[in-house]
Amino acid sequence: MEKLKKYVSVKDEDHFYHQGAVELLIFNFLLILTILTIWLFKNHRFRFLHETGGAMLYGLIMGLIIRYVTKSSDVESETVYECETLKSGPSTLLINITNQVYEYQYKREISRHNVNGHQGNAMLQKMTFDPSIFFNILLPPIIFHAGYSLKKRHFFRNLGSILTYAFLGTAISCIVIGLIMYGFVKAMVHIGQLKQWEFHFTDCLFFGSLMSATDPVTVLAIFHELNVDTDLYTLLFGESVLNDAVAIVLTHSISIYSPKANPNVFDAAAFFQSVGNFLGIFAGSFAMGSSYGVVTALISFMHLTKFTKLCEFPMLETGLFFLLSWSAFLSAEAAGLTGIVAVLFCGVTQAHYTYNNLSPDSKMRTKQLFEFMNFLAENVIFCYMGLALFTFQNHIFNPLFIFGAFVGVFVARASNIYPLSFLLNLGRKQKIPRNFQHMMMFSGLRGAIAFALAIRDTESQPKQMMFTTALLIVFFTVWVFGGGTTPMLTWLQIRVGVDPDEDLKAKAASQTASNLDKNTTKGESAWLFRIWYGFDHKYLKPILTHAGPPLTSTLPEWCNPIARLLTSPSAYGDQLKDSDTDYIINNDELTENYESSTHITVPAQDSTVSIQTTGKEDIQEGDLGLGGYKLQLQHTAGQPKSSLA
Amino acid sequence: MEKLKKYVSVKDEDHFYHQGAVELLIFNFLLILTILTIWLFKNHRFRFLHETGGAMLYGLIMGLIIRYVTKSSDVESETVYECETLKSGPSTLLINITNQVYEYQYKREISRHNVNGHQGNAMLQKMTFDPSIFFNILLPPIIFHAGYSLKKRHFFRNLGSILTYAFLGTAISCIVIGLIMYGFVKAMVHIGQLKQWEFHFTDCLFFGSLMSATDPVTVLAIFHELNVDTDLYTLLFGESVLNDAVAIVLTHSISIYSPKANPNVFDAAAFFQSVGNFLGIFAGSFAMGSSYGVVTALISFMHLTKFTKLCEFPMLETGLFFLLSWSAFLSAEAAGLTGIVAVLFCGVTQAHYTYNNLSPDSKMRTKQLFEFMNFLAENVIFCYMGLALFTFQNHIFNPLFIFGAFVGVFVARASNIYPLSFLLNLGRKQKIPRNFQHMMMFSGLRGAIAFALAIRDTESQPKQMMFTTALLIVFFTVWVFGGGTTPMLTWLQIRVGVDPDEDLKAKAASQTASNLDKNTTKGESAWLFRIWYGFDHKYLKPILTHAGPPLTSTLPEWCNPIARLLTSPSAYGDQLKDSDTDYIINNDELTENYESSTHITVPAQDSTVSIQTTGKEDIQEGDLGLGGYKLQLQHTAGQPKSSLA
Repeated sequence: MEKLKKYVSVKDEDHFYHQGAVELLIFNFLLILTILTIWLFKNHRFRFLHETGGAMLYGLIMGLIIRYVTKSSDVESETVYECETLKSGPSTLLINITNQVYEYQYKREISRHNVNGHQGNAMLQKMTFDPSIFFNILLPPIIFHAGYSLKKRHFFRNLGSILTYAFLGTAISCIVIGLIMYGFVKAMVHIGQLKQWEFHFTDCLFFGSLMSATDPVTVLAIFHELNVDTDLYTLLFGESVLNDAVAIVLTHSISIYSPKANPNVFDAAAFFQSVGNFLGIFAGSFAMGSSYGVVTALISFMHLTKFTKLCEFPMLETGLFFLLSWSAFLSAEAAGLTGIVAVLFCGVTQAHYTYNNLSPDSKMRTKQLFEFMNFLAENVIFCYMGLALFTFQNHIFNPLFIFGAFVGVFVARASNIYPLSFLLNLGRKQKIPRNFQHMMMFSGLRGAIAFALAIRDTESQPKQMMFTTALLIVFFTVWVFGGGTTPMLTWLQIRVGVDPDEDLKAKAASQTASNLDKNTTKGESAWLFRIWYGFDHKYLKPILTHAGPPLTSTLPEWCNPIARLLTSPSAYGDQLKDSDTDYIINNDELTENYESSTHITVPAQDSTVSIQTTGKEDIQEGDLGLGGYKLQLQHTAGQPKSSLA
Repeated sequence: MEKLKKYVSVKDEDHFYHQGAVELLIFNFLLILTILTIWLFKNHRFRFLHETGGAMLYGLIMGLIIRYVTKSSDVESETVYECETLKSGPSTLLINITNQVYEYQYKREISRHNVNGHQGNAMLQKMTFDPSIFFNILLPPIIFHAGYSLKKRHFFRNLGSILTYAFLGTAISCIVIGLIMYGFVKAMVHIGQLKQWEFHFTDCLFFGSLMSATDPVTVLAIFHELNVDTDLYTLLFGESVLNDAVAIVLTHSISIYSPKANPNVFDAAAFFQSVGNFLGIFAGSFAMGSSYGVVTALISFMHLTKFTKLCEFPMLETGLFFLLSWSAFLSAEAAGLTGIVAVLFCGVTQAHYTYNNLSPDSKMRTKQLFEFMNFLAENVIFCYMGLALFTFQNHIFNPLFIFGAFVGVFVARASNIYPLSFLLNLGRKQKIPRNFQHMMMFSGLRGAIAFALAIRDTESQPKQMMFTTALLIVFFTVWVFGGGTTPMLTWLQIRVGVDPDEDLKAKAASQTASNLDKNTTKGESAWLFRIWYGFDHKYLKPILTHAGPPLTSTLPEWCNPIARLLTSPSAYGDQLKDSDTDYIINNDELTENYESSTHITVPAQDSTVSIQTTGKEDIQEGDLGLGGYKLQLQHTAGQPKSSLA
């Protein structure tokens, strides 16, 4: 008898495994469909629907099917049981049911009004991810990849503008959306759709901060494919990457802003505490992330006399690289900071220092690994967004709130881009032209981060309303703005078909090698950049990589013993080559680019060879890295690159 | 007030995230340590501790620290609550605790005697994985990688012997261990250590089947590094790969063997049902896995006139490859079959057909991706095994049972290898020599699969005793046998430093090109192989890949219209080349090997170049692929390859 029972329990367990398998299979199926669709689109050079838009569409359809086709069951879970003996919710609950002890794990707190939502079919419930999966598993690879593939040369030249858009711009956007939403909320209270105490100004600001995270993944993919003007690309990419970090920390700071008295009255102490929180968390995460990057660079750079270098074991190197980068995320989370921000700056540091120390094999491996993880994670998130419209059970569609949000998002984007561009143009030698500003305005898509921030808390009714609205804005911007990118580029007459390396070479050729360092940087007007570049080039690069001048020549004379200890023997030999070519940041990269471009020009006719060279270029370049297949398309298609201009 | 509460709940949630981060960070830390240690060992050419052994050791130390250093807490979870209103355990439980509804998720059923074990500190509980993680996340990449990197040429030549060892050998091993354990259990009952009704013969067989899964990962890594005789390597690798599949299905079949009456009496109907189950599940999983492989091959092979081939978009190709392979696992699980077996045969099929259709870039990407996932998963499992010795809370150390298990495992291995080798040698032209048999006997390590099977059910006391014992056997065999591999090879005078390609070339040179097909296969005595090879070469290869003769020449004449439709245009051109070189399985592979070996001999002195060629060789070869760094070591070390012989 007891035996039989045991077997039944084993079977139950198996049943649980199978359930999980079915849900994952659905996701796999959606992703496979997405990939096949992208393939189809690529064949027809169809650029109006990006893969993420496609993934969202399939998710939507699947959600519809699950919602209305699968049977409803599991009625029992509606019931709320009383357990008077419990005083608080323990993390593990042991319950005696008909003489058998069952273990239950704490999942979450539920608001009373959501309890009814738990009816419906079991499949619907199962398809709902734990929100923590977004933050802990799906977002880190995407954000790391963004950091790791920053187009460094152009990024640092535009550093001042990017920082302005990212910090000041996001703050402006957050406040503008918050104010507009507060107006709409007041109106809703006035016509009786909402109760006064349900929605405070801080809630509006919270919504503003989460809606300020732009994610122009679709736009950037198209920019990359069409080789849009590098400066525009860099401004947009840099802004969106840093802006995610700012929005996440901002959301966090606002959510822990808790005025002591009436929440509607401005509490200066609490406000400044929030500002302090923001700065502290941001700086802490930045420090955590970049120090992990530096540690990785040091390990991969180590050349103790007795040791073979780590770069001779590509698998170990890749493994270490991956684990240390992930540790940056986990350490920040464990320390109460923001892991996403840490992993972003870890990625930037890894790309800037560690990447130069890696073996060619590891460069390729890490690049491809993160590219692949990014590809999968991104498509899973967009699939899930599609699914969520029908499978999430507590949607609150409020037309007025949604309308307000749309107005808010566009007004906020406009009051971010145009005034800041005007201010920046006062200081910039190379102005941001009017059509670039329009394009940046147009590229304010909302995506994964806004969604992840919104789904993190969907317990209260205002939060559910925000979630529904955020989801709709994501749908609208990804499909409408994402799809309209190519026509918009044509309409705004923005230069496409720019080869960033050619661009660089052209500039390099117009200047003599000796005074490159001064001229180029002066031309960029970026005093911030000059200071940073000097420090980085003289001290950090030589300590952390094989590039740059030996420390013995950059440090004051009395530091010579330490300098000699820290400098790589190979740095002495590279000195001349370095000062010749490294006029932006990194000599290795540049010389490699020259090499790779010659590689390409010769065998571009031959299909198999061109695949290999494209792969190489892709890896050595350090750009967005959205896959060699995009560059590939152009080689095989053979159409003129600037056909759209 | 309500506001405050909400924020507290958000903070609680954050706290949960942070907890998860700490545990993952510990694992990351262990893995980083492991990698650094391997690096150290590789520098000192220290072969007595493989990376998996090192991972286990670090896990052990960390477990010790967590157990005795961290504070104990969470006393409340000891208490069992009564819920008389519930009739059965629902998957989601909503509980009202002090006017707040909490959601709890079903975790598992607990035996009464385990309830006390739930005291102790929270950290210890947190570090305990859900067993399903092993089966659903960690094992699939390991098993797939094993299938994907089967040394095909040698594998198919030894197919008969490998199948004999894997099926017959595992069955023998299971029964022998079962019988010996039954003897020990009887003795334990006799001296009063165990109660009669606790341990049936089926439990002994269950233990026998889970202990029959050999995992000579350490041994094979060393074999690979030392280039041990290819036939020995293939026999051992093939056996261990298939044997895992057999052991998993066997364990499953035994666990669902439920005689109606007294479980101690032999029930013929139930027995035959179990045998039927075994065959059905095995065949079903095999079919599921290989059909996914075939589908992938077909998709990657598709060349519709209007379409660019998928292989021109390496990222899409890699993604599709990954997702379809994972779907093989999930579909099998969802259908109630064994996912691990499906993913194994999916891997074999992918390597055999799809691999040939992939673009060079994707070949490399998939190879490296699966290699990397295998590397991580393997080290996580071994780390966790080390941890489990101290963190698992329901260990039952029974000296007699453990002693019995050690005896059983060795006797079973001996009665598997020696008698079967004798029988096989009767039929084989190329005998399995005595020293090979000893080495195979010695290489019967137990590892990840045995552990995963044992941890799957640790509810009852017998199962806990089995788990503890299995864990100890894994420790012992990995450290002692794994560490003793190199001395044992020397002692048994087994040929090392064999280049498999040279081996093949030597054989190829000794035979004329025209009658290769007949001679080689005849020399191998494998009628099974001949039939399979003929069918594969004539029909499957041409349909699924670009290799092989065109179908128009192999199919009867009346099939010509279909044949023309299915044959790749490139097959016609390759016809001559194919019949010249493809004398084992695959012409592409062989020609590539010739190329890669010439690549290596020339620039072997130069350090950077040799890295790249090693990488290439690693990818093109399709062997175990335990990382280019192993081959690398030999290039840089410059010592004679056969120094141990």
